[in-house]
Amino acid sequence: MAQGRPPVTAGDSKTTRQRRNQPLVAVHTGAGKGKSTAAFGLALRGWNQGWSIGVFQFVKSAKWRIGEQSALEALNDVHRGTGQGGPIEWHKMGSGWSWSRKAGTEEDHARDAVEGWAEIKRRLADQTHTLYILDEFTYVMKWGWVDVDDVVETLRSRPGYQHVVITGRDADPRLLEIADLATEMTKLAHPFDRGQKGQKGIEW
Amino acid sequence: MAQGRPPVTAGDSKTTRQRRNQPLVAVHTGAGKGKSTAAFGLALRGWNQGWSIGVFQFVKSAKWRIGEQSALEALNDVHRGTGQGGPIEWHKMGSGWSWSRKAGTEEDHARDAVEGWAEIKRRLADQTHTLYILDEFTYVMKWGWVDVDDVVETLRSRPGYQHVVITGRDADPRLLEIADLATEMTKLAHPFDRGQKGQKGIEW
Repeated sequence: MAQGRPPVTAGDSKTTRQRRNQPLVAVHTGAGKGKSTAAFGLALRGWNQGWSIGVFQFVKSAKWRIGEQSALEALNDVHRGTGQGGPIEWHKMGSGWSWSRKAGTEEDHARDAVEGWAEIKRRLADQTHTLYILDEFTYVMKWGWVDVDDVVETLRSRPGYQHVVITGRDADPRLLEIADLATEMTKLAHPFDRGQKGQKGIEW
Repeated sequence: MAQGRPPVTAGDSKTTRQRRNQPLVAVHTGAGKGKSTAAFGLALRGWNQGWSIGVFQFVKSAKWRIGEQSALEALNDVHRGTGQGGPIEWHKMGSGWSWSRKAGTEEDHARDAVEGWAEIKRRLADQTHTLYILDEFTYVMKWGWVDVDDVVETLRSRPGYQHVVITGRDADPRLLEIADLATEMTKLAHPFDRGQKGQKGIEW
């Protein structure tokens, strides 16, 4: 794609710089692949800008997607060692959040999800990160574990310059309504349809 | 998504391991965002598996998408320094391919594209990489700079265990036909529609 030239002229009185520096809510939804992968790809850009990045994985399995986690943690190490790029924190719900240090249990995902969202709200209020990746967070909303209106209001009113990317199928219309950027990934062909199983490097 | 459980049982006599280790052709197409970003996200998984990765950017601007390039080159440095992960090469067409070392010109993109594809064919024959990312390669096919049937036949007959990911809008039906995995990214909402310009960290 050619470098961004907007087809519409904004009707407000903002300068180009102000418009450029608008913090975004992005949603990657749909049944196709690439939702999370594209979010983690965005982390590469943010890292290169020196942004503080927080990844919050709202999934059950602690071993899932270890590939991206290892790679982004390696980039965090590069930042700590050389100053290049920015810091990346990776938190996952799998066996209790890393900040809570409690013994993990696969029993109460709803409670863990609520705790994760409360932590993200605190960080948004504190402007802890420049980029938040809330991976598979749509399910947490869909299942009613967190309140969609609370999410929408929190995102709408978040202070400063903080981008938030949310991934997962079946994004709530209220979330899509406030998204600055929403992409639907649709499956055209998938090896699972041919009896192909998931494989390392591709699926995780 | 739950860890891969195929909805269809393969009718062939391959073992699970053989099926798992099937090299894939993946296509990210459609007018929405995330096509290239998801491809670079896949590179994180491949890097973590220790794969050799070759990125070939078929775009004009040499400064475009510097974010992912810097981050993946940092991961390549991590590999060279510590042995973690795998090697990543990043080649772009912008001002002549890096291997040709000729003075760059923005004049003859068609010739550069042909040269890039010839190099990729050599590498596929030599089994140089495990993962190839041919970024925005669909345009090169669409514009007739490389022959679609040649691409399809080369991919079909490539030896060994080599994954190829191709990104860009308007993927040719013949390419989609042989794709093991094809995803269409569709725009649901985009800040450009509101007069928002591209911004660092998000667009590049």
